[in-house]
Amino acid sequence: MSYRFADRMYKAPESFIEELFRVSGEPGVISFAGGLPDGSLIDVDGIARVTREVLDEEGQCALQYSTTDGYLPLREFIAERYRQRLGLPATASEIQIVNGSQQCLDLVAKIFLDPGDVVGVERPGYLGAIEAFSMYGPEFHAVPLEEDGPDLDAFEAMVTEKAPKFFYGIPNSQNPSGLTYSQEKRRAVAGILEDSGTVFYEDDAFGELFFDGQPRLPVKKYLPDGALISGSFSKIVAPGMRIGWIYAPAPILKQFNVAKQAADLHSNFFCQMILHRYLTRTDLDAHVRRVSAIYGERCRLMCDLLDDRFPAGVTHTTPQGGMFMLVTLPEGVSSMDVFYAGVKEGVAVLPGVPFYANGGGENTIRLNFSNADEASIKEGMERLARVIRAFL
Amino acid sequence: MSYRFADRMYKAPESFIEELFRVSGEPGVISFAGGLPDGSLIDVDGIARVTREVLDEEGQCALQYSTTDGYLPLREFIAERYRQRLGLPATASEIQIVNGSQQCLDLVAKIFLDPGDVVGVERPGYLGAIEAFSMYGPEFHAVPLEEDGPDLDAFEAMVTEKAPKFFYGIPNSQNPSGLTYSQEKRRAVAGILEDSGTVFYEDDAFGELFFDGQPRLPVKKYLPDGALISGSFSKIVAPGMRIGWIYAPAPILKQFNVAKQAADLHSNFFCQMILHRYLTRTDLDAHVRRVSAIYGERCRLMCDLLDDRFPAGVTHTTPQGGMFMLVTLPEGVSSMDVFYAGVKEGVAVLPGVPFYANGGGENTIRLNFSNADEASIKEGMERLARVIRAFL
Repeated sequence: MSYRFADRMYKAPESFIEELFRVSGEPGVISFAGGLPDGSLIDVDGIARVTREVLDEEGQCALQYSTTDGYLPLREFIAERYRQRLGLPATASEIQIVNGSQQCLDLVAKIFLDPGDVVGVERPGYLGAIEAFSMYGPEFHAVPLEEDGPDLDAFEAMVTEKAPKFFYGIPNSQNPSGLTYSQEKRRAVAGILEDSGTVFYEDDAFGELFFDGQPRLPVKKYLPDGALISGSFSKIVAPGMRIGWIYAPAPILKQFNVAKQAADLHSNFFCQMILHRYLTRTDLDAHVRRVSAIYGERCRLMCDLLDDRFPAGVTHTTPQGGMFMLVTLPEGVSSMDVFYAGVKEGVAVLPGVPFYANGGGENTIRLNFSNADEASIKEGMERLARVIRAFL
Repeated sequence: MSYRFADRMYKAPESFIEELFRVSGEPGVISFAGGLPDGSLIDVDGIARVTREVLDEEGQCALQYSTTDGYLPLREFIAERYRQRLGLPATASEIQIVNGSQQCLDLVAKIFLDPGDVVGVERPGYLGAIEAFSMYGPEFHAVPLEEDGPDLDAFEAMVTEKAPKFFYGIPNSQNPSGLTYSQEKRRAVAGILEDSGTVFYEDDAFGELFFDGQPRLPVKKYLPDGALISGSFSKIVAPGMRIGWIYAPAPILKQFNVAKQAADLHSNFFCQMILHRYLTRTDLDAHVRRVSAIYGERCRLMCDLLDDRFPAGVTHTTPQGGMFMLVTLPEGVSSMDVFYAGVKEGVAVLPGVPFYANGGGENTIRLNFSNADEASIKEGMERLARVIRAFL
């Protein structure tokens, strides 16, 4: 039988990531290619304790259908944390629960995008977002990311000339680059977007993971009605529960709720109740400080090795937080070649190409530093240095 | 700020269901309006036991990211059950895990539908499906549902004249009608669809809940390459986990996987592992028999009361399983009037109108019999009979 799929499926960018991950998973390969938080830092015992309580005390409710917007006490916890941590005037009515912040990508695109609409993205930009948005047939307009945030001239030109429905950015420790917007650029971005009709979609998966433990004020602070934030418990508690959220102005949330209900009724309610109990019984700040400190050490180690042991012409970003950094290889060295040669040498990296919406980035690679211990980083980076040296 | 949403959001049918549910939830109201399985039949203790084991033995893995297709042992369990129970040659490679079967509605529509494409639905048809499909701008073509399945002449005319991308049906104990296709009609439907290019989307949320405990062979049995099935643990284990699946031919599953990954990476992995352990440690057949028997008693009670205590001209379907039946009021009696008068009398029903994709059904109501005990059914149906009598 021949199946007649929708046009969007024929336009979807061919994903070679899966193949790369398959190859990187081979035995003996030290992988910096993935994007996992360190599983050994998940507080399994703490989660087990509150899970028992939820099932003992409220099991029937936790296992029954629930409402689309999500468990109210969890939404209240999230709102309270925005108020305490960032001084944002968030209320539970502005928060909805989703299946990890990836679902926000799909649903925000769904409520905003008609085919041909312009979406602004960073260059490089998060691959998962580009893939999710692609399903709705937009035209991507990429704004170069500098050390301290978007190129403002290019950003302003995009807003005035292209009037994108929204601009998608990760101001805190971006994936793939690890770059963080300066406060000045956040204010400037908000100023350009004010009354523009373009929404700022602020993906904040990594905002809790600054190595110095200091929060950065989001763009939404300067653009309350024109920005939405997506957040996630995947990096600060546990990804396997697939619980994230959107924090957005009421008119956006109303449409979002319609799309969420049609998409899957509601997110796993059992895990929403577990998470809420866990968050109210645990010193989340202490846990996050510990995780951030460990990621910070791994990041510094990787940066030091890049500076000391790699050939001239190899440069890298210097993340202030998060899980990733971007390495630029000497002009003419192909990241795909480095990938395949690396796997043979027992080290996997992620070629940067798919992070560049309209092409480019051929000599960039993304390195993940959250999910390898010190010894693996040392050994893996030695292997990588050898591989790159062989191409020069 | 004025937000520029996608066209699909302005075309979405105005949902009055939420308002109805709000009203039906008022204190003192006996509700037959909802669609919940009976929470007291969820095996909370059994689930608590295996949850402890998962966290003790595989906690770190259960709480980490996983693959888009889902937990392989769970997919193998599902495939094995298709082989054992229905004689279908299912393999794990044809099964993917989703967030309850509602997510199948969204993703199947996403991979098949361009705006203006025709989708075949039953008349009446499942509201949640109509809402999910609506997001992709299809034209609905409704085929009348008779006692034993679709009107075959209308079905054949639809296939040959409208060439729908897919036809969506619930052959087992349909929502809202409670009707079940006969085996003859299943074969006939498969025969008409053979080599037609139209896929049969077989929503099987209720196939385990036949009161007589006998499985019915799905349409897919007669149309292996041209049918996909969606299934769900919501009615047989617990809805709060939001775990369902799709069972589909490889070329469909490949596209589905792309859409699922973009939508939310993967479903809650923790609950997939819990479910798998639960299913392998529990006598699922015995549990399902018990639940079905109780629903069967409630259904019979409701049917008897409709026959004995309601005015002439009130007719109803006689479900063989599931959770719902459809009542037709005497010509000229409006189900919306009955709804509002009912709430005043302390009984809530669901007007049938939203289940009719292109209008109609004004004198029908859906009754849920799974989530009210015998006493509530008796009292609620007395109230409902009074309400209807007052309109004659």
